[in-house]
Amino acid sequence: MISTAITANTSVVSKRGATHILRNITSNGLGRSGLGLRPASYAIVIATSPAQRHHFSTTPNNPKIQEFFPQKETEKVRKTPPAWPHPIYTYDQMESVVVAHREAKTMSDKVALQAVKLLRWGLDFATGYKHEKATSLHATDPEAARKKYAMTEEKYMIRNVFLESVAGVPGMVAGMIRHLHSMRRMKRDNGWIESLLEESFNERMHLLTFLKMSRPGWFMRMMVLGAQGVWCNALFFAYLISPRTVHRFVGYLEEEAVVTYTRQIADLDAGKLPKWEKLEAPQIAIDYWKMPEGHRSMRDLLLYIRADESKHREVNHTLGNLDQIEDPNPYVSEYKDDSKPHPTKSLQFPRPTGWERSDVI
Amino acid sequence: MISTAITANTSVVSKRGATHILRNITSNGLGRSGLGLRPASYAIVIATSPAQRHHFSTTPNNPKIQEFFPQKETEKVRKTPPAWPHPIYTYDQMESVVVAHREAKTMSDKVALQAVKLLRWGLDFATGYKHEKATSLHATDPEAARKKYAMTEEKYMIRNVFLESVAGVPGMVAGMIRHLHSMRRMKRDNGWIESLLEESFNERMHLLTFLKMSRPGWFMRMMVLGAQGVWCNALFFAYLISPRTVHRFVGYLEEEAVVTYTRQIADLDAGKLPKWEKLEAPQIAIDYWKMPEGHRSMRDLLLYIRADESKHREVNHTLGNLDQIEDPNPYVSEYKDDSKPHPTKSLQFPRPTGWERSDVI
Ligand SMILES: [Fe+2]
Ligand SMILES: [Fe+2]
Ligand SMILES: [Fe+2]
Ligand SMILES: [Fe+2]
Repeated sequence: MISTAITANTSVVSKRGATHILRNITSNGLGRSGLGLRPASYAIVIATSPAQRHHFSTTPNNPKIQEFFPQKETEKVRKTPPAWPHPIYTYDQMESVVVAHREAKTMSDKVALQAVKLLRWGLDFATGYKHEKATSLHATDPEAARKKYAMTEEKYMIRNVFLESVAGVPGMVAGMIRHLHSMRRMKRDNGWIESLLEESFNERMHLLTFLKMSRPGWFMRMMVLGAQGVWCNALFFAYLISPRTVHRFVGYLEEEAVVTYTRQIADLDAGKLPKWEKLEAPQIAIDYWKMPEGHRSMRDLLLYIRADESKHREVNHTLGNLDQIEDPNPYVSEYKDDSKPHPTKSLQFPRPTGWERSDVI
Repeated sequence: MISTAITANTSVVSKRGATHILRNITSNGLGRSGLGLRPASYAIVIATSPAQRHHFSTTPNNPKIQEFFPQKETEKVRKTPPAWPHPIYTYDQMESVVVAHREAKTMSDKVALQAVKLLRWGLDFATGYKHEKATSLHATDPEAARKKYAMTEEKYMIRNVFLESVAGVPGMVAGMIRHLHSMRRMKRDNGWIESLLEESFNERMHLLTFLKMSRPGWFMRMMVLGAQGVWCNALFFAYLISPRTVHRFVGYLEEEAVVTYTRQIADLDAGKLPKWEKLEAPQIAIDYWKMPEGHRSMRDLLLYIRADESKHREVNHTLGNLDQIEDPNPYVSEYKDDSKPHPTKSLQFPRPTGWERSDVI
């Protein structure tokens, strides 16, 4: 694992735990908490070896990046297009995406909301993400705030990689359960599986895109591995028990995702993330979102991803409003009256808190 | 469960285990072993109650069939199209599908082949399917053969429903594992997931189509339920241990599926399945396979399904020949030289025993 962490600006080559990677910490702008970990959780790691903490860092433009992206072109194959082509979003539509919150009305809604709050607290704790505290300290002492709380490009990137790696799980688990369920109960699925699998694919594309721009160290990889095991099982049983609650839960998670990406765009616009200002979207992103020429910056990429998250938010809140067994999936159905606004895969008729059942069935 | 088994020709209405469904056995042509079960396994069931055995029977054109197919049209929704549109097959292509066997070369191949033989023996035992014995007895005493061994429309239908209900599992399990794997190892999947999920969707469409033409009783449903639990877990662990072996195993299973449907078509052509001669394909099949007018008989349907199975056979044998981690999926890739034969989703270039790695990568 360690040998995969060798980077372009490594001065000592690492050999399976025997030596450690040395790198000038300040030269890449990371600083003491540049790994996005608070001292508490940090201590667990440096207990192994002080030098190993550098493995968490993200390293843009690394030649070793190809490890994650084996050359897909082979002797005979030219390329392999994505499983689900992405719908086209216009710039107006993407700029209009808003932070939103659906009120928790039922008991099931409240359980879902509390679960999201708990997870969010855990993740903020682990990654040292303190937006409110940072903002208030910034008002009185900008320099201290920058040193103590500022989210750097690297911190945001670590957070994004971790979040996207877990975001791809719920759709796949839900899709599989509904598939097995349809065969077992011998009933049609009415189109839900398609949207759920497509969502999980879209989240995986987010992850792969961020991985093109960073390179997680071994600690990050261990985190993702452990999180996936627990998370996958928890969602499996939760979806068996109450699919409605899980859809609401994912709806609330996606509300947070929209908040996170909105903040990143705001920080970028405020000049707080200078490295991202000149950063270009990787080719995988240009191909997947069909990003038009001249609109292929990091900011554009964040706009696309935020728009996707807003779509997941809407889809899951809507699915959470429906009869889980009988109702068709409104996102892949044809409507009798196509002229009225109705759910679509694109951003044509946004409905941030989801469509009510009476609107679509 | 029992209350769902009430049929059109039921003379006594069943109430949750209190009374039993009575039906004239001979009037629907089933006879003693008309349920496709041999006396041995049969005994387990009639131990509960002699009358309950009738629940296994399939009942074509039953008004209660809508239970499995809730009206999909709602106040606002007109219809919900399939997740993956089916490729177009020509009649020449479908008639050219052949029974084939890929030689087991490696140890992994041999394990896969033995596993399929074991499963086949188990299923034949359970459903009283004895094609060879029937054929040889038929040569000497056709009347005795017909009474003792003949596969009726109902027996074939039961077999098909059971087989299709388990056939949808491997693709979904493999797709999920590769999806989780891609996120955990932070590597691209190279297009495999798409074909695996599409295969599981196609198998589920086979199941739903057969369910439109029959109606399994509670015993069948219990069988499907139990089989899915064991089968799903077995495949999950098998795919974690050796994905290559699982693809080869599915390749061999699909060889058997092509054999089964070829026999059904032959029996139909030989006039042994008179009820199927006038049977029309259900609407769900016409829509999914886009069956042309005048080609919507049961025979046409079996041709489509057999062609799908031949495609799964080819896809899985091919995937079993590839590097499971590095190679792109040849079925969704674009080729540098498109004029040469290469793997496609259609039947354009059939390769019954799969494409060798050197041909496609
Ligand atoms: Fe995402
Ligand atoms: Fe999302
Ligand atoms: Fe099938
Ligand atoms: Fe198949």
